[in-house]
Amino acid sequence: MKKKLKELNDITAELYDIGFAQSLLGWDRETYMPVGGAEARGQVVATLGKISHKKATSPKVGKLLDELVKYAEDLDPDSDEARIIKNSKRGYDQRTKVPPEMVAERIMITNAASMGWREAREKSDYSIFQPHMEKIVNFAQRFVDIFQPYDHPYDVLFDLYEPDMKTADVIKVFEDIRPKQVALIKAIAEKQQVEDKFLHQKFPIETQKKIGAELIAALGYDPKNGRQDVAAHPFSTTIGYGDNRITVRFDENFFNPYMFAAMHETGHAMYSLGIPKDNYRTAIYGSCSSALQESQSRLWENLVGRSKPFWEGYYPKLQEYYPTQFGNVSLDEFYKAINIVKPSLIRVEADEATYNLHIMLRLEVEVGLLDGSIKVKDLPEMWNSKINEYLGITPPNDSVGVLQDIHWSMGLMGYFPSYALGNLISASLWEKMLLDLPDMDDQIRNGKYSNLLGWMNDKIYVHGSKFFPQELVEKITGEKIIGDAFIRYLNKKFGEIYNL
Amino acid sequence: MKKKLKELNDITAELYDIGFAQSLLGWDRETYMPVGGAEARGQVVATLGKISHKKATSPKVGKLLDELVKYAEDLDPDSDEARIIKNSKRGYDQRTKVPPEMVAERIMITNAASMGWREAREKSDYSIFQPHMEKIVNFAQRFVDIFQPYDHPYDVLFDLYEPDMKTADVIKVFEDIRPKQVALIKAIAEKQQVEDKFLHQKFPIETQKKIGAELIAALGYDPKNGRQDVAAHPFSTTIGYGDNRITVRFDENFFNPYMFAAMHETGHAMYSLGIPKDNYRTAIYGSCSSALQESQSRLWENLVGRSKPFWEGYYPKLQEYYPTQFGNVSLDEFYKAINIVKPSLIRVEADEATYNLHIMLRLEVEVGLLDGSIKVKDLPEMWNSKINEYLGITPPNDSVGVLQDIHWSMGLMGYFPSYALGNLISASLWEKMLLDLPDMDDQIRNGKYSNLLGWMNDKIYVHGSKFFPQELVEKITGEKIIGDAFIRYLNKKFGEIYNL
Repeated sequence: MKKKLKELNDITAELYDIGFAQSLLGWDRETYMPVGGAEARGQVVATLGKISHKKATSPKVGKLLDELVKYAEDLDPDSDEARIIKNSKRGYDQRTKVPPEMVAERIMITNAASMGWREAREKSDYSIFQPHMEKIVNFAQRFVDIFQPYDHPYDVLFDLYEPDMKTADVIKVFEDIRPKQVALIKAIAEKQQVEDKFLHQKFPIETQKKIGAELIAALGYDPKNGRQDVAAHPFSTTIGYGDNRITVRFDENFFNPYMFAAMHETGHAMYSLGIPKDNYRTAIYGSCSSALQESQSRLWENLVGRSKPFWEGYYPKLQEYYPTQFGNVSLDEFYKAINIVKPSLIRVEADEATYNLHIMLRLEVEVGLLDGSIKVKDLPEMWNSKINEYLGITPPNDSVGVLQDIHWSMGLMGYFPSYALGNLISASLWEKMLLDLPDMDDQIRNGKYSNLLGWMNDKIYVHGSKFFPQELVEKITGEKIIGDAFIRYLNKKFGEIYNL
Repeated sequence: MKKKLKELNDITAELYDIGFAQSLLGWDRETYMPVGGAEARGQVVATLGKISHKKATSPKVGKLLDELVKYAEDLDPDSDEARIIKNSKRGYDQRTKVPPEMVAERIMITNAASMGWREAREKSDYSIFQPHMEKIVNFAQRFVDIFQPYDHPYDVLFDLYEPDMKTADVIKVFEDIRPKQVALIKAIAEKQQVEDKFLHQKFPIETQKKIGAELIAALGYDPKNGRQDVAAHPFSTTIGYGDNRITVRFDENFFNPYMFAAMHETGHAMYSLGIPKDNYRTAIYGSCSSALQESQSRLWENLVGRSKPFWEGYYPKLQEYYPTQFGNVSLDEFYKAINIVKPSLIRVEADEATYNLHIMLRLEVEVGLLDGSIKVKDLPEMWNSKINEYLGITPPNDSVGVLQDIHWSMGLMGYFPSYALGNLISASLWEKMLLDLPDMDDQIRNGKYSNLLGWMNDKIYVHGSKFFPQELVEKITGEKIIGDAFIRYLNKKFGEIYNL
């Protein structure tokens, strides 16, 4: 049986390698690929996708799994071996249900859609993206159909990012936190507002880059194992063991977008790089789920990067870099400004108090698209009306409205809820971490992040994808994913900032 | 049979796509990959190589070819179909002889060797590279053995780059030109020498980059279809239709290395980009051979880039970019300086009169390594003694001696002769082109390169890899590859410069 398991692992290793090649092809498409290479790139990605799918769904894998699943019945269900077999079986069952033509179709659709989205977003012209989006939604509907029966059609998509979680789970959590966040936002709106206009000045890109490179290395992202490049949308991607790269974008006239995206993506990168080599290229390698990934990115972006202790330590240095911009801005003013709560249009730039509302909107829209109650052609109108309902503001154009996110163009429907869940998990982890490392504020103030990283490593990274997200969160915090810690965190932080 | 041919072409298309993914993995390794990703990168490349080899050598392909080869007997032997079948059969026969383990072994060896070479070259320490080179030579010997019988063991390697050519062909040509080049060099040495010290000044890298980017676009290398990045060794690589990239390196204290490498690599890129889309991803797509590729790179680097008319047109602009460096240097002085003939250590920086001697040396060394008459451990000594014999100079260290070229580390034994053949072909093509476009000097002087590019396109690019190199050269010039035109070119050009 050891031999059979090795055979399975060898095939999984090849699938990982093909996946890493695809990651590089994807990274390159977003960073350095000349535009004239787009069509050929689509074919290369489609070919690799086809080869990968064929290999992953081969009868040989099915036969190996039939035997290994029986063998696993006598193993400790939490052993690496048992989990490798369980995850492999799960993946095999999911993939064998999808016909190879649909796999190739998905790649061709999303490749064209990515280019279409980029152009549509640049020109703020939804009509360029609409035909792509029609295909994406139609594909998602056909994809979901394959997996009948289900409790909720959205489950099929959501489960791709949060294994074993249900739409009902996330709706329940959202229903719990929504009124609490709305109440907080309302209370804040009635108070003296925060001034942040000094964040909107000229910040030379070269200086931003320099600060960022220094800072992300200080957090623990080793340049030997990564790099930052410019792309339209910040992301983090693993190209192989020891190589996780982030992308960022610069705004010369606004301090926040680069700085916090860099810390956000660094959180992803450190998680990915922290997954141990022992089980490299097996079915328990990789991160637990998108929400767990987001818990790390949001933790470094917000619980560290937007915290008072962090800036108590780092602000004097920042002032040296930006003497004219921040020389006359006190630490307190700066801290409040980067934590301003103000309903805004762009999800990735939203403050912590309103962020989850952006996600709730997207969940509603995606569910509506999937069940046909929202038509693709009506999307901009629907978007604008919903964001008005949620946040009381209206996008001046689709570029900062329905076209702002890359996800749909990549076929990532079902992904958005993970962002909000990540926020919730990050706060739950933080409360738990403070019990073990009560002087964390001091450590952060002194620029010492290694214990924090070590804690995350021991609790999360070390497990790779061995556990499902609800299992892992429960294992660490004693409870499944809930919003309590996050709401406590918001109320405390913004209570202080806004004198609530 | 059309259906069978389509089946074959579909498989070839997938092989191309895997190859393009590998090209990107290779490009990235030399340009942007963080060092920590090296080991994983080796595995990815090996996995893709294994998949590609398995697909290319599958019994299915063998069976298709058996039938198609018979079918091709009744086709016009110069038709696309017949040539696709012929080239496919040739490739299949070559590949099926090599066991899959050796394919994987080659990738692992060369991946490690590339890293080893880089370090050895940086530290100028041959001992770091020696164990890698032992493996490479040992591998080459075993590889050659598989293809017995042969006229000459080196034929097996040489044929990988120059299909259907023999070592005897290249030795014959080299024996013809060697005394003529030696006589020319000797005659030059006895004359008043050229002054080139103004080429060794400070040239800010940003300015070099700017000039280069402008210039290569003006030559006809569309930035929509390519890019230039920095790597230890300049190269050109095709990542897919419409995406051919070059790499360059900068020397802030010497004008030549970047400028002429950029034009050289641009020649490669324009050839690759000019191959028509019609037969994309079939066995007659791609360039004819390495020598034909080099004929293009050397043509743009030397017959254009080091010509009097080119600088008559471009030198005033260059002087504007470098007023302090070249303000007081006349066109004539500049032209002579960039054409200085002076035995030197680095092949890629060698002048046109001595360049081929560098190749002859390498051919001797490679043949000696292959037949065991030269031992890997003795390579630096052997190299230094031979370069002294050929050029009368001795490398001060191995970095500028035996370690200067990346080729062996990539497993490219048998490749070097193509460079010299490329020089010969470039001059033969030029003579032929002048019959059709007698005012080419004027066109170049006026910065008009489109007719020249168009001529190369019609004669060479359009054929892809349909013909073998000797066939194609004969088709264009009426003769197989010979050195006559090249020697005429050298004698005329340097006769004028050195008043011979």
